[in-house]
Amino acid sequence: MTNDTAPGWAPLGVAPLDAGHAGVLAPQFKALGDPVRLRLLSMIAAAPDGEICVCDLTGAFDLTGPTISHHLKVLREAGLVDADRRGTWVYYRPRPELFASLARLLDGAHALAGVGR
Amino acid sequence: MTNDTAPGWAPLGVAPLDAGHAGVLAPQFKALGDPVRLRLLSMIAAAPDGEICVCDLTGAFDLTGPTISHHLKVLREAGLVDADRRGTWVYYRPRPELFASLARLLDGAHALAGVGR
Repeated sequence: MTNDTAPGWAPLGVAPLDAGHAGVLAPQFKALGDPVRLRLLSMIAAAPDGEICVCDLTGAFDLTGPTISHHLKVLREAGLVDADRRGTWVYYRPRPELFASLARLLDGAHALAGVGR
Repeated sequence: MTNDTAPGWAPLGVAPLDAGHAGVLAPQFKALGDPVRLRLLSMIAAAPDGEICVCDLTGAFDLTGPTISHHLKVLREAGLVDADRRGTWVYYRPRPELFASLARLLDGAHALAGVGR
């Protein structure tokens, strides 16, 4: 799906991760380690137009705007979503290549099929 | 790979996660969200005999035994590894079906190929 099929680490089950790569990957998993962020990410990833306005995210949660904004910032800083401000609102887009990269780490069988080795 | 190809949630990009499933999945990702735990998990998953003694894990880290034990407990409580005590030592085994499940969530393309829809 992507050209970056040689990420510098092997999938789980193939070889141990070194400290450097673990340090890069862990914050991405940590960003996924919260139920509100997982739900936000799933809404952003499933947006019919490929992006979604923050104004369409907040209504789904019984949380304040600043709390939602904090979680969106964590997702953005982890590289899982991109964001653009246009006028009043911020619009969020998924970065599926990063999801695929984490999936490759977790599922060696998929990784091996995916990169053709 | 597994028979539980209908986990009750759709991969990212297909449909939003509900709160219940997000609440189940988030702790698993949270367990992965630490570089020491990622390295431990990768060592357990890559163990040539399908399991590895805790005595072979601790030497790779400049950390105390209790700290390593804490991280292993988090992995075990998240369901990512199984553990057996035999004699003096605890032996750890990976649960690759759980890694594959998380990979399916992250990578919709893989998920769609994997479950044949």
